[in-house]
Amino acid sequence: MPTSTVDPADPVFQLHRGGKMAVVSTVPLTSRDDLSLAYTPGVARVCEAIAAEPALAHDYTWASNTVAVVTDGTAVLGLGDIGPRAALPVMEGKAVLFKQFGGVDAVPVCLDTQDVDEIVAVVKALAPSFGGINLEDISAPRCFEVERRLDEALDIPVFHDDQHGTAIVVLAALRNAATLLDRKLGDLRVAVSGAGAAGVAVTKMLVAGGVDPDQVVVCDSKGIISAYRTGLTGTKAELAELTNADGRQGDIAEALRDADVLIGVSGGQIPEHAVAGMAPGGIVFALANPTPEVHPEVAARHVAVVATGRSDFPNQINNVLAFPGVFRGALSARATRITDAMKVAAADAIASVVAEALTPEAIVPSPLDPRVAPAVAEAVAEAARRDGVARA
Amino acid sequence: MPTSTVDPADPVFQLHRGGKMAVVSTVPLTSRDDLSLAYTPGVARVCEAIAAEPALAHDYTWASNTVAVVTDGTAVLGLGDIGPRAALPVMEGKAVLFKQFGGVDAVPVCLDTQDVDEIVAVVKALAPSFGGINLEDISAPRCFEVERRLDEALDIPVFHDDQHGTAIVVLAALRNAATLLDRKLGDLRVAVSGAGAAGVAVTKMLVAGGVDPDQVVVCDSKGIISAYRTGLTGTKAELAELTNADGRQGDIAEALRDADVLIGVSGGQIPEHAVAGMAPGGIVFALANPTPEVHPEVAARHVAVVATGRSDFPNQINNVLAFPGVFRGALSARATRITDAMKVAAADAIASVVAEALTPEAIVPSPLDPRVAPAVAEAVAEAARRDGVARA
Repeated sequence: MPTSTVDPADPVFQLHRGGKMAVVSTVPLTSRDDLSLAYTPGVARVCEAIAAEPALAHDYTWASNTVAVVTDGTAVLGLGDIGPRAALPVMEGKAVLFKQFGGVDAVPVCLDTQDVDEIVAVVKALAPSFGGINLEDISAPRCFEVERRLDEALDIPVFHDDQHGTAIVVLAALRNAATLLDRKLGDLRVAVSGAGAAGVAVTKMLVAGGVDPDQVVVCDSKGIISAYRTGLTGTKAELAELTNADGRQGDIAEALRDADVLIGVSGGQIPEHAVAGMAPGGIVFALANPTPEVHPEVAARHVAVVATGRSDFPNQINNVLAFPGVFRGALSARATRITDAMKVAAADAIASVVAEALTPEAIVPSPLDPRVAPAVAEAVAEAARRDGVARA
Repeated sequence: MPTSTVDPADPVFQLHRGGKMAVVSTVPLTSRDDLSLAYTPGVARVCEAIAAEPALAHDYTWASNTVAVVTDGTAVLGLGDIGPRAALPVMEGKAVLFKQFGGVDAVPVCLDTQDVDEIVAVVKALAPSFGGINLEDISAPRCFEVERRLDEALDIPVFHDDQHGTAIVVLAALRNAATLLDRKLGDLRVAVSGAGAAGVAVTKMLVAGGVDPDQVVVCDSKGIISAYRTGLTGTKAELAELTNADGRQGDIAEALRDADVLIGVSGGQIPEHAVAGMAPGGIVFALANPTPEVHPEVAARHVAVVATGRSDFPNQINNVLAFPGVFRGALSARATRITDAMKVAAADAIASVVAEALTPEAIVPSPLDPRVAPAVAEAVAEAARRDGVARA
């Protein structure tokens, strides 16, 4: 458990005082007439119309533009299981980013339970108030089951950002890195370090986006995941099945030998000699925060393109490039779920924003680039319509 | 089930399009520095501080100013069980009134369950995200158990507005009506018509405020509640014990014979001859909406002061006089619960705003009177401190 306390001189604490968000009315409330339109007796007519035709809730409530940012506080940033109260500042931050970049109203929902059945029951019960569910910082492997069950149960989009937000931006960055290096995604040998929520989703997303699964190896803390490993269950068993056609075994250094791409989503450290064993002209995404798996300056000695999760180095792989536009698009299309094709479309849209001006230091847009979210939203909504999951 | 549909020319539908509320950021988010303070990596320092000292969540998140407006959609306005989606426009209306009058951020939470155990479990799970729980439009008798169990389980205020909001404003109005008529609360013979959520709470609140329970009779659809009635359970058995010391039996006309006060919270109709049987110089609060139990002009033939729940007659008994200030005060005092003394203090504060200018047409302030919520908030916070339930 962390032991830090408050430094009143720290601008972070000054900024966070009182929280970072508020609710506002979008209708006038200053006269008796205002009250009788917005509240009783007028509001009863809207209620009756929705009771008779539930789909009207989309047009006449804020739910259609509102996402619940749901966590149980078990896997917050690099901090781990800090509980729902301590997770709230992150969820508020997420909520204000949703609004700033996607025009999406988002509400933090920090749950005082870690039980999968209870999390699923709570979110199902809440769902009528929201147009989408953004799951956040729920630890693996529970996050996989929570997302799967909610996705099956609800007719609104359910999206675990730690998985898919990261995976979308990684795919976008890899697309552009490959273009820059004149390589094809399907030819790249990829090593993924980390088999938690992000590692699993990144691997599946890369495959959905065109990487050859036979040429992917995924490592967890015990080394390369392969059919030879005993006792693998759930998503790791899936990864052993999906990836590593050659049945390679060993540690991360073995995984990286002659690899073109390293994607670090582990939080662990990778020694320089392992990176040095990669093929020439390689690509390293060292995404652990605040300490990348390999320091970007060290990585740059051995590869052609380096990205991190940090804002103080070039090529920040930041989920904010994805989630506001993904939900903006899904809500605008009234999508019932978020399909793989919608995620790939989001990645393509992110990549396309900087495709005309690629350099090794600019394979992804800045997190503040105002072009990103609208491009993602449009691509996601179109993909939803193509996939037949749109209601608008 | 209602069958109305949308009239696009109706200003109510025009106003409700897209909903009535939004989330906004209260911090800047336009530079990389902004992002690294409000979100990663800076936010981690706030999370760590709260993990080490949970009470800091009060200072550094929005939860301390935020109330969940929770319903299951079973007893919405006069519409009944219309479900969570159709209830949402009312909860949004409540939320924007919370902000407008109390400066309280409120979030509608419409639940897709009517099971008491599940409602309690969901709200308990949500609680870390909120500073208070406003229960709304949950049908009796389930509302009593939901409130009691949540009040016991949580260390934040839980308040069922249909009960206590109404009861507070009724007590305020009765205070001023008694003053105007130079009567003492303890001398008044009171008939309450309706033994649902509001009737039960009004009865208890009047007694807490000084009305003599021996001189109160409560009627439900079967007539006067007394010790002679068989098969009474729960709150009705409590009412039979608490009120009606003389053991009166019969219908509403019998209840009103020689009564000084009628409080209608039933939704039913009361014939003029019954009102005519009241003692001279009486008081009628006919609060059913949209159709009062007795029309105010009819009541005025027989009594000295008349109030309704409607905005188009004098003396509107409107919960908005209570709930924004009650929660403003409770949140400001960081109260762990809302005690009877806090509710009585709220009623006194509402009454005091117009105490210097009482007329038969002005026993309560206008719902738009900006003096009300601050007065209520201050009185509620002081009462919380006197009752030892304040943490600030």
